Amino acid sequence: MSYKSDIEIAREAKKQPIQAVGDKLGIPTEHLLPYGHDKAKVSQDYINSVQKNKDGKLILVTAINPTPAGEGKTTTTVGLGDGLNRIGKKAMICIREASLGPNFGMKGGAAGGGYAQVVPMEDMNLHFTGDFHAITSAHSLLSAMIDNHIYWGNEQEIDVRRVQWRRVVDMNDRALRQINVSLGGVANGFPREGGFDITVASEVMAILCLARDLKDLEKRLGDMIVAYRRDRTPVFCRDIKAEGAMTVLLKDAMQPNLVQTLENNPAFVHGGPFANIAHGCNSVIATTTALKIADYVVTEAGFGADLGAEKFMNIKCRKAGLAPSAVVLVATVRAMKMNGGVAKADLGAENVDAVKNGCPNLGRHIENVKSFGVPVVVAINHFVTDTDAEVQAVKDYVSEHGAEAVVSKHWEFGSEGSEDLAKKVVEVVDAGNANFAPIYPDDMSLFEKVETIAKRIYRADEVLADKKIRDQLKLWEEQGYGNLPVCMAKTQYSFSTDPNLRGAPTGHSVPVREVRLSAGAGFVVVVCGEIMTMPGLPSKPAAENIHLNDSGQIEGLF
Amino acid sequence: MSYKSDIEIAREAKKQPIQAVGDKLGIPTEHLLPYGHDKAKVSQDYINSVQKNKDGKLILVTAINPTPAGEGKTTTTVGLGDGLNRIGKKAMICIREASLGPNFGMKGGAAGGGYAQVVPMEDMNLHFTGDFHAITSAHSLLSAMIDNHIYWGNEQEIDVRRVQWRRVVDMNDRALRQINVSLGGVANGFPREGGFDITVASEVMAILCLARDLKDLEKRLGDMIVAYRRDRTPVFCRDIKAEGAMTVLLKDAMQPNLVQTLENNPAFVHGGPFANIAHGCNSVIATTTALKIADYVVTEAGFGADLGAEKFMNIKCRKAGLAPSAVVLVATVRAMKMNGGVAKADLGAENVDAVKNGCPNLGRHIENVKSFGVPVVVAINHFVTDTDAEVQAVKDYVSEHGAEAVVSKHWEFGSEGSEDLAKKVVEVVDAGNANFAPIYPDDMSLFEKVETIAKRIYRADEVLADKKIRDQLKLWEEQGYGNLPVCMAKTQYSFSTDPNLRGAPTGHSVPVREVRLSAGAGFVVVVCGEIMTMPGLPSKPAAENIHLNDSGQIEGLF
Repeated sequence: MSYKSDIEIAREAKKQPIQAVGDKLGIPTEHLLPYGHDKAKVSQDYINSVQKNKDGKLILVTAINPTPAGEGKTTTTVGLGDGLNRIGKKAMICIREASLGPNFGMKGGAAGGGYAQVVPMEDMNLHFTGDFHAITSAHSLLSAMIDNHIYWGNEQEIDVRRVQWRRVVDMNDRALRQINVSLGGVANGFPREGGFDITVASEVMAILCLARDLKDLEKRLGDMIVAYRRDRTPVFCRDIKAEGAMTVLLKDAMQPNLVQTLENNPAFVHGGPFANIAHGCNSVIATTTALKIADYVVTEAGFGADLGAEKFMNIKCRKAGLAPSAVVLVATVRAMKMNGGVAKADLGAENVDAVKNGCPNLGRHIENVKSFGVPVVVAINHFVTDTDAEVQAVKDYVSEHGAEAVVSKHWEFGSEGSEDLAKKVVEVVDAGNANFAPIYPDDMSLFEKVETIAKRIYRADEVLADKKIRDQLKLWEEQGYGNLPVCMAKTQYSFSTDPNLRGAPTGHSVPVREVRLSAGAGFVVVVCGEIMTMPGLPSKPAAENIHLNDSGQIEGLF
Repeated sequence: MSYKSDIEIAREAKKQPIQAVGDKLGIPTEHLLPYGHDKAKVSQDYINSVQKNKDGKLILVTAINPTPAGEGKTTTTVGLGDGLNRIGKKAMICIREASLGPNFGMKGGAAGGGYAQVVPMEDMNLHFTGDFHAITSAHSLLSAMIDNHIYWGNEQEIDVRRVQWRRVVDMNDRALRQINVSLGGVANGFPREGGFDITVASEVMAILCLARDLKDLEKRLGDMIVAYRRDRTPVFCRDIKAEGAMTVLLKDAMQPNLVQTLENNPAFVHGGPFANIAHGCNSVIATTTALKIADYVVTEAGFGADLGAEKFMNIKCRKAGLAPSAVVLVATVRAMKMNGGVAKADLGAENVDAVKNGCPNLGRHIENVKSFGVPVVVAINHFVTDTDAEVQAVKDYVSEHGAEAVVSKHWEFGSEGSEDLAKKVVEVVDAGNANFAPIYPDDMSLFEKVETIAKRIYRADEVLADKKIRDQLKLWEEQGYGNLPVCMAKTQYSFSTDPNLRGAPTGHSVPVREVRLSAGAGFVVVVCGEIMTMPGLPSKPAAENIHLNDSGQIEGLF
């Protein structure tokens, strides 16, 4: 039996006009700002108008630590959304936008897969509604204004050796990682070192995704630290007077993007911050708006639950006043086998023992998520090679560990395949047993926050940080940043900081390499390992084969 | 009496839904790809479907050499378009898009002015439909792929000292004019010198504006020279295999943008190449499409007629097979006075002698335009301070020099004020006396082409170029580029290369500083003077005051 590719399925989609999709949520046509016939932004006026509505229920989809087998988190998010609609619920999904640059290195990604996808897939991998371009522009404006400020007399007394604000571009361009700028003489400014990150790593992206509204956006932009003076006092974006114009550049980008699933159910696709140096969730404004217009809102977080769900809970929910009613933890039989020591090439053969050996990774994520006071449903994202015995092994393990696992076949059958999952999720949500709370209080010291996550989520014995790092955290506490949450940046492949340590390790240490203050986004980034903020292209970039065919279709992007 | 500002008038516009504007041209709704409710792209399918239509008549609006008094070329373009619609003609206008970056230095510009404007003005000064962002992305992809090619073994043997391809960003950022890239060690590549231009200076922009269709676009992108080898042979974009993916990034940007005038008449606003190192006209695809769906198409070219009209005729019309039926040459009484020696502060007082003294600048432009075989109508763009005697002096001068001048009051009264101009233009167009031809043949040598323009248009005695430049031109001729037109880059303020030499100078020399080959765009750039391809911000950038007010309106941008 052969299966169609994601792009083949996506191209066969019978899309509805976006106005019809909006109508399902009760959004009047005049409040949908269309981008073509299948994408629209929801107007700020409409968002304002629904603020008094009762909130729907929030469901987070997260996953075990990712393996090369693939866990299908977004696919399950989409499948669950469609399943909820199928059983008669007013439901929508909220996911992140894709970054443009990486598509030219490796092939672009679908939003979902199989019969659980969001469309239009090609637009979502290219310019979409221009949000990331707007973020690049706003970021670039501040970059230009900083060097312009220095050029015209440097009234703020910026130390050119201590400009923190790097430039960004939405492209994988390693040549720009480290550069010298303002060369060429007097007319071009004061030479200094600089560099570019990819746009999704911009603090502007994190802020857009955490801001409640345009006023909050402008305030947070102003709060960003762009440089330090010789006396180490911070120079803020508002000292450069850039936050107003940046907000103007971002005003359209702040409005959530409405698209549809293959089954014509509504989806917000909005924002896409890094899941390492940022919090890795779609925008707060999309999620909070969705909760005002749908009864069930399914969203996801980046990477596995140790990073993604932890940040979703401790950063996004804390800051936005959100409280999830349930968490769906995605696992696959194949990923369990890999956690149980099977190589990717051998995944085809039944191996119940390996499944059982891999399950502790899943078990620990269940425990962790429940420690936030939120009930867990495990979704076994079904692959056609899974055997009944393997599936049963996962189910048995999960029921022994305080949750229930449901097989979901949305990839193969769309909502018909996710109906059981949807029913179970509704049952858990409607039981109303969630009692969400972040796992550390605002007023805990920054270092203790790191320790809390490392010990309670990663199950490490200790956090290692040298005096310089501890002093830096104390200085920020003295400057009034002690109440911020911490944003962990570590490998997504393990609970530990060693990507090869699968399963459910204990007894390890978490070494902190570096800490960074994102004063506008409102978190302290704690870097534990190598973090790449500007990727490069491979030796044979996907771009070499991307082109339009004679029918005007895009080839090579997927 | 006080007048409303352009932005006040624009905000009071009673815009029609863009579908209603398209309907006036017979464009079915499904072929309009909306961007919000007041902007749309016209689909490539629709463009293909009208190719067999008969062509309408093309009217170019150009102007005298610009003075600080302002000549109102775009305003007249819009006013004439509205006037033609008013007298019952199926007419539309085609103008350029604005660049984002410069708005944060000086205040943004209207498209037109007074009651002759195109809207939505704010969007047109910000992201609009994302075309320039797409150009930046396509350009940036090639930049990344070139350094990536060098990084992974440099199969093409690019000489890193001879990489011609600079990077671009749509921002005024002088710190990026000259930079060193690929610093920081082995993982970041081979250090070399580089720099950024502003996006409108990209050859990709010029190509987008000259390409007939997507196939032509892809071919031209492939033709671009990005670097040279040690043996001085060129490395083309197609050697880097970037042109297919760049075309994918540009496929939406190639579709013309439909917007409307204050009087709800259709306007294409598409493309915006520099008018110095490029040809300074809106896109060929917008102009040729407009000619298929309207009976009269009014377009404009950058700067004064010596640069703008010359390039429109010798580059755009030659390459696209266009033949204008008439040229409208915009002049103002105030600009005539400035050409006649009056300072800007003294323009308020009547001064008929100064008007007469300034008229030779206008007279020479009339002669020049007629030398292309196209009849001329002079539009006196009326200012409220103009006296009858001053206006009469211009009219008398023009009629003595083989054309007719019509006063137009579109700025103050919209189409009611431009009705006379519209009638005169229709009379001239419908008389069918145009017999357009470029002023030099394809097979003339490149240097002779420069001489032809310098002597016949600028009325210089000679062109000065050292041996190195002449040898370079000969080398390009040997390589097969001899049949290209030349694209002159000189000051727009004078017929000569001295910006202070107003009026109608003779006996001057045209020194050529530098020549550049834009092999994809298809012209040889001849630089006569300082050309700035990356502007800086002023000491008090407009951005410092740009913000959203409490009603969500943009303040400080205009």
